[in-house]
Amino acid sequence: MQLLQQKILELSTVPKEGILKVDNFLNHIIDPQLIIEIGKELALRFKDSKIDKVLTLEASGIAPALGVALALNIPLLFAKKSLPTTMTDGYHTQIHSFTKNKDYDIFVSKEYIKKDENILIVDDFLAMGHAVLGMKNIIAMGDANCVGVGIVIEKSFQSGRQILLEQGIHLESLVRLKNVSPPHTIEFIIE
Amino acid sequence: MQLLQQKILELSTVPKEGILKVDNFLNHIIDPQLIIEIGKELALRFKDSKIDKVLTLEASGIAPALGVALALNIPLLFAKKSLPTTMTDGYHTQIHSFTKNKDYDIFVSKEYIKKDENILIVDDFLAMGHAVLGMKNIIAMGDANCVGVGIVIEKSFQSGRQILLEQGIHLESLVRLKNVSPPHTIEFIIE
Repeated sequence: MQLLQQKILELSTVPKEGILKVDNFLNHIIDPQLIIEIGKELALRFKDSKIDKVLTLEASGIAPALGVALALNIPLLFAKKSLPTTMTDGYHTQIHSFTKNKDYDIFVSKEYIKKDENILIVDDFLAMGHAVLGMKNIIAMGDANCVGVGIVIEKSFQSGRQILLEQGIHLESLVRLKNVSPPHTIEFIIE
Repeated sequence: MQLLQQKILELSTVPKEGILKVDNFLNHIIDPQLIIEIGKELALRFKDSKIDKVLTLEASGIAPALGVALALNIPLLFAKKSLPTTMTDGYHTQIHSFTKNKDYDIFVSKEYIKKDENILIVDDFLAMGHAVLGMKNIIAMGDANCVGVGIVIEKSFQSGRQILLEQGIHLESLVRLKNVSPPHTIEFIIE
């Protein structure tokens, strides 16, 4: 997705090896028009799939996933990182965050994963794939189907892509990063 | 906002006195078309204000605030509830959550609050007003202006509204709840 590559080249920073900081248009500041374009493009990549619902993880997944839900005109469900006081019957699973170097649980109300429903996972970043695998795990707990995974920025130099492909998952990433090094070397994989 | 009142009457539940559970269209499942309508309506309520940026708090504020940012075609900034590893220079302030009965800090990068900028705060719920006051505090730290507060659902039986009005804040709430009691008594304030 050329618009996104351009935004990354113009606006991102690289604070250290392998870390791309995109918080001036995606992760802290959000550019709403970019979200619409991201949503349209990911929807297009899954146009041959029947999708009932989009699933993401709070907080930075919400905006791009909402873009996809808007483009497909279907509901968005976001997994929570802490147990809401009003959630009485939920699925949960543990995820390891390599960025934050800690484990955390994610929670989804059982009533929002319906048997045989077709669910598309959307997230802002794919690195080691643990967040996606956690969401896939929750979809499986509800006997629903994971029809694919849509990612805004894939760190192709980490193992997430390989792990998801080995599981037979339909993976679409709008931008694939081959290499990210300070001060501002950003190489894309162009397919 | 009639569409929202209708959604609340049809889809919400009231697990206990004063608690309205709207997680099947706003707080866990998100209805993307409703977000667009919420965004348009809040944008309309502030049409006489010059607004440079929308500010909200992760996670459940992001969707409605993105709706407003889309309608106004301006950036959205969301405050974080934990310090990101890549944030080196941020404003932070403490907020008390009555729902969760705990204090937490919120963080915003200093570079994203510019001097004299006009910022609209948007949040999903207004109860005691602490989240809004925390965001207003952060806007003040950056010498920017809080032009108003746009709320999706106001619990008018709690003190947030009164506190914000006493501070001279332009407050707009799409729905005002007079009373919420189990099993499903929901009274609105119609203005």
